[in-house]
Amino acid sequence: MKKVGIVMGSDSDLPILEKSMDMLKSMEVPFEAHVYSAHRTPDEAIAFARNAEENGFGVIIAAAGMAAHLAGVLAANTTLPVIGIPCKSSQLDGMDALLATVQMPTGIPVATVAINGGGNAALLACQMLALSDSALSARLKAKREKDTKAVLEKDAAVAAKYNH
Amino acid sequence: MKKVGIVMGSDSDLPILEKSMDMLKSMEVPFEAHVYSAHRTPDEAIAFARNAEENGFGVIIAAAGMAAHLAGVLAANTTLPVIGIPCKSSQLDGMDALLATVQMPTGIPVATVAINGGGNAALLACQMLALSDSALSARLKAKREKDTKAVLEKDAAVAAKYNH
Amino acid sequence: MKKVGIVMGSDSDLPILEKSMDMLKSMEVPFEAHVYSAHRTPDEAIAFARNAEENGFGVIIAAAGMAAHLAGVLAANTTLPVIGIPCKSSQLDGMDALLATVQMPTGIPVATVAINGGGNAALLACQMLALSDSALSARLKAKREKDTKAVLEKDAAVAAKYNH
Amino acid sequence: MKKVGIVMGSDSDLPILEKSMDMLKSMEVPFEAHVYSAHRTPDEAIAFARNAEENGFGVIIAAAGMAAHLAGVLAANTTLPVIGIPCKSSQLDGMDALLATVQMPTGIPVATVAINGGGNAALLACQMLALSDSALSARLKAKREKDTKAVLEKDAAVAAKYNH
Amino acid sequence: MKKVGIVMGSDSDLPILEKSMDMLKSMEVPFEAHVYSAHRTPDEAIAFARNAEENGFGVIIAAAGMAAHLAGVLAANTTLPVIGIPCKSSQLDGMDALLATVQMPTGIPVATVAINGGGNAALLACQMLALSDSALSARLKAKREKDTKAVLEKDAAVAAKYNH
Amino acid sequence: MKKVGIVMGSDSDLPILEKSMDMLKSMEVPFEAHVYSAHRTPDEAIAFARNAEENGFGVIIAAAGMAAHLAGVLAANTTLPVIGIPCKSSQLDGMDALLATVQMPTGIPVATVAINGGGNAALLACQMLALSDSALSARLKAKREKDTKAVLEKDAAVAAKYNH
Amino acid sequence: MKKVGIVMGSDSDLPILEKSMDMLKSMEVPFEAHVYSAHRTPDEAIAFARNAEENGFGVIIAAAGMAAHLAGVLAANTTLPVIGIPCKSSQLDGMDALLATVQMPTGIPVATVAINGGGNAALLACQMLALSDSALSARLKAKREKDTKAVLEKDAAVAAKYNH
Amino acid sequence: MKKVGIVMGSDSDLPILEKSMDMLKSMEVPFEAHVYSAHRTPDEAIAFARNAEENGFGVIIAAAGMAAHLAGVLAANTTLPVIGIPCKSSQLDGMDALLATVQMPTGIPVATVAINGGGNAALLACQMLALSDSALSARLKAKREKDTKAVLEKDAAVAAKYNH
Repeated sequence: MKKVGIVMGSDSDLPILEKSMDMLKSMEVPFEAHVYSAHRTPDEAIAFARNAEENGFGVIIAAAGMAAHLAGVLAANTTLPVIGIPCKSSQLDGMDALLATVQMPTGIPVATVAINGGGNAALLACQMLALSDSALSARLKAKREKDTKAVLEKDAAVAAKYNH
Repeated sequence: MKKVGIVMGSDSDLPILEKSMDMLKSMEVPFEAHVYSAHRTPDEAIAFARNAEENGFGVIIAAAGMAAHLAGVLAANTTLPVIGIPCKSSQLDGMDALLATVQMPTGIPVATVAINGGGNAALLACQMLALSDSALSARLKAKREKDTKAVLEKDAAVAAKYNH
Repeated sequence: MKKVGIVMGSDSDLPILEKSMDMLKSMEVPFEAHVYSAHRTPDEAIAFARNAEENGFGVIIAAAGMAAHLAGVLAANTTLPVIGIPCKSSQLDGMDALLATVQMPTGIPVATVAINGGGNAALLACQMLALSDSALSARLKAKREKDTKAVLEKDAAVAAKYNH
Repeated sequence: MKKVGIVMGSDSDLPILEKSMDMLKSMEVPFEAHVYSAHRTPDEAIAFARNAEENGFGVIIAAAGMAAHLAGVLAANTTLPVIGIPCKSSQLDGMDALLATVQMPTGIPVATVAINGGGNAALLACQMLALSDSALSARLKAKREKDTKAVLEKDAAVAAKYNH
Repeated sequence: MKKVGIVMGSDSDLPILEKSMDMLKSMEVPFEAHVYSAHRTPDEAIAFARNAEENGFGVIIAAAGMAAHLAGVLAANTTLPVIGIPCKSSQLDGMDALLATVQMPTGIPVATVAINGGGNAALLACQMLALSDSALSARLKAKREKDTKAVLEKDAAVAAKYNH
Repeated sequence: MKKVGIVMGSDSDLPILEKSMDMLKSMEVPFEAHVYSAHRTPDEAIAFARNAEENGFGVIIAAAGMAAHLAGVLAANTTLPVIGIPCKSSQLDGMDALLATVQMPTGIPVATVAINGGGNAALLACQMLALSDSALSARLKAKREKDTKAVLEKDAAVAAKYNH
Repeated sequence: MKKVGIVMGSDSDLPILEKSMDMLKSMEVPFEAHVYSAHRTPDEAIAFARNAEENGFGVIIAAAGMAAHLAGVLAANTTLPVIGIPCKSSQLDGMDALLATVQMPTGIPVATVAINGGGNAALLACQMLALSDSALSARLKAKREKDTKAVLEKDAAVAAKYNH
Repeated sequence: MKKVGIVMGSDSDLPILEKSMDMLKSMEVPFEAHVYSAHRTPDEAIAFARNAEENGFGVIIAAAGMAAHLAGVLAANTTLPVIGIPCKSSQLDGMDALLATVQMPTGIPVATVAINGGGNAALLACQMLALSDSALSARLKAKREKDTKAVLEKDAAVAAKYNH
């Protein structure tokens, strides 16, 4: 199975990406995590993207904050789908990272998820890989049903407590 | 080959989605376009999403403006990857559609592209399908090279005109 | 008397909706609370909205955060008035939920109140029901007078402390 | 049948409120329109709100731009439901009017619709009045079905033109 | 000497207005403080504004948060200058109050100061009163000089600590 | 009578300040207009502010766009009240000028009016001068009444056209 | 004399950069202009930055819109100062480009000027080069004086027309 | 070697500027720090800027919050390059300071860095001074390499912990 590459611009983003890794593990999808900065280690970031397909990756998840260029830099150096997670830093509530990630020019898309959306980035990666992996597709459907049940259990708890 | 489903909330979004359709044609990827509103035709929108996999779709592109719920509604009813295009309406410069598309809760990701980013939505769909289609992958790489050359030609033109 | 339906996208929104429930109790208006996610339990959310009128509901209050689609999904499946409470999540200060709730397309209005405005959502529901319930109308007027008195008492306290 | 009161802060907002009046006419709901400024004619605005119930109004629609106080001023002087339409002026894209309309303090709700949402304000007023008027409720349902059909016809046109 | 009227929409704004009162005391300007809500006690707020000139007030300071209508309501009922302090509430970082205070329509100005700017509102009131009070004008100039000295003392401290 | 000083950062702001001048003329308040840039003619701007009181000015109106420092620079060099008009330039819809004008630090207030609010800036200046000029105060009250009548005439026109 | 490198992400930004080039010509500073996209021609952009010092450049100006990564990519590959011009595209009024340009992480600064600020970018480049070029420094001072005079001439024209 | 002038509008900004001073020390660049407010000590701020070149300064760093005029005031009084640090205050998340610093009018550029970007302001100053100081240029390159290594070490740590 193709791997998911997880690249973070700084290890301070690890808590967000641990949600990604947990999701991938639960979906039984292999992954590899790296700290590559678009600005401080451009060579390594670019090399990772350029060799990703050959190295067995199918999708790349990139997480960065502030003027978040990482996802764009990776996307510019591969034709694999790149998923961007805008990370909230200590100013501007993540709006800077969101705009710097999603507003990509024509030719180089980045599949952007919610601010700090580590779990959803991994789920989206799984959905892409499941296009040619029916077992993974089945696991995604099972997870969806489990999520539905979890909400309904909360509904029952709320109804029991508040409704008469 | 799996098809791309294109769903727009209103036919006023057609100019944006024609860029998607042109891109898909140039990549030789089959598609099917529909006008389904998340709010005015919820049954048809949901049915489209629920049957999409069975009907031969691999990826869904959803375009909507204002409180853009369409991509989220489709994503909630399929485990296929859903790409959201936030469309700029006459107020708020597209910020409402961007936030309503990208800020999805955990469990239901939407792969969001730039405001009015019809071309990139289609490219991203191709990148997903190319994971299991090496001919499409080759076409994507060829397009990337063509884009690079186009920029370099513009560079030559600018250099010729302005530099001495 | 018609009931007020209270639907929250997640039980993490309960503190906001407890303000709604307290207000409804003080106005002696019956209600029923549920946890239904627009995305994780679309079937239950839609069924609730479709059957609401028949099940004795007069107004529906919907509370959700981030790309808050819940009020819109409910409104799309009933012609009862739907009141939306945008809930502040951990990013963007509630602006995402506000825009995703209020910027509804023509045909499907959502009566939006302030971010986290649980109390006002309930008051607004009471105002709607009071259109055909003069006793409730009287209770609303009594509450309004009580609120006025409370402000004037604070004025007296401030005047006593600060003015000479 | 109770009337809908339509109050605009300036007659420059008429194009938005003509959409409201057209909708009310099509729903056969009586209305009365006024130009009352919260700031330039506070007495008349307040008198209108205080006497609205007695004068046969059931719902009030208020439209204003910039620091849009009109809906709040009316709501402070009646317990009838007040619907606010934030109007876009020449700066800030309507964001000022939206925040000044929707962010009401506890005790005085304003049911806010989208920026320039004249049609939806009227629909919401009808939904409120329909709570005790089954004929109006039926007309709302018929309109909803008609809207659905209109979207499906557009879908057929798009499918015919773009899909093969 | 004319008094400054201080009106707050809620006593939760007291910490901001205590800065105003301290400033007025240090400038030896008499004041009177009230809690009047534009929405919960419109009659009292309006009466205060209408009688302010007759009651010996020269300037009114109004502080409110969220959809901050208070300054506008007061300004609509007097031709005395009204100074608005937008107060930061728990959402949107004060932007809602700022826009609802400053974006007044032609005819009814509100002299708006910074978010939570209690001290500056009082200073501005003093500047207005000093137009016909040369002793107050002298006190304002003395304070300005004192402020300048305070900065220069901090400069000396910083220079001593960091520069060699 | 004290004069109003009108300072604009650029003569491109003249259309906004002509509204100020028209208002001052109609209120029979003398004024003097200048083009002084906070950045390109700091000496002249500062000299104007420092000598304003001595030169017979009572209030200064300052209009500037973008990083609008003009009002702040003038306010820093006089204890006369300074009114700031944030001017909308070709980007950011005037938000940059609004924040750069209103968010002044403690000690140096600027009385900020709405974006492009030339008329209101002049009215506010009149309100300040009227504190010691009962004839001007009377003219302000007469204008207020005239404004009220103008709205009521529009109300009559709308009522005649739309209500039956 | 060291040259200024001008890099634009797209030739649609030429009108902004022609202002840069005009300014450099008037300051007699040599320059070289290129169209290099951070995403479509990353190799050329990076190569330009890496060789810039050796090729006789002293400062680089980078102009890009949307998720404007260009200045950051260049800055990551040189220790020459890089000036970023955020360019306004058809959505979001340039805010996306501003945040994507200015919010750089520690270690890789970009000297950001105003949205579409082509002229100022060039002036800033001149100020940097003038640190070791007294003739250029003199030209900058002469230009500053000329700008001052131009404002004072406009002041005279306004005073002549409006003041009596 | 030319010195870097560090000017802060308030000593509450010291933590941000200590990052600047640490960076300058590590680059062996002399500096001098001052507290000068654009509004409370305009004379001293202007005098500092006017005499800066003569006093041996090459670059000025200015840090201020709210309506941050300091960098602009300094830039208006020197042709040395001025670097602006927008400082986050207790409201609006630093957006007010960012816009007030970066949106300078043509003729007076301010080289703006990220909100609270003390370290980068110093680095940018070093890059400017390094244009005529090859030893400093070498130190900048060495620092860049060290930064790269630090990221790669973090990458190794993450890879060791998370990848197998």
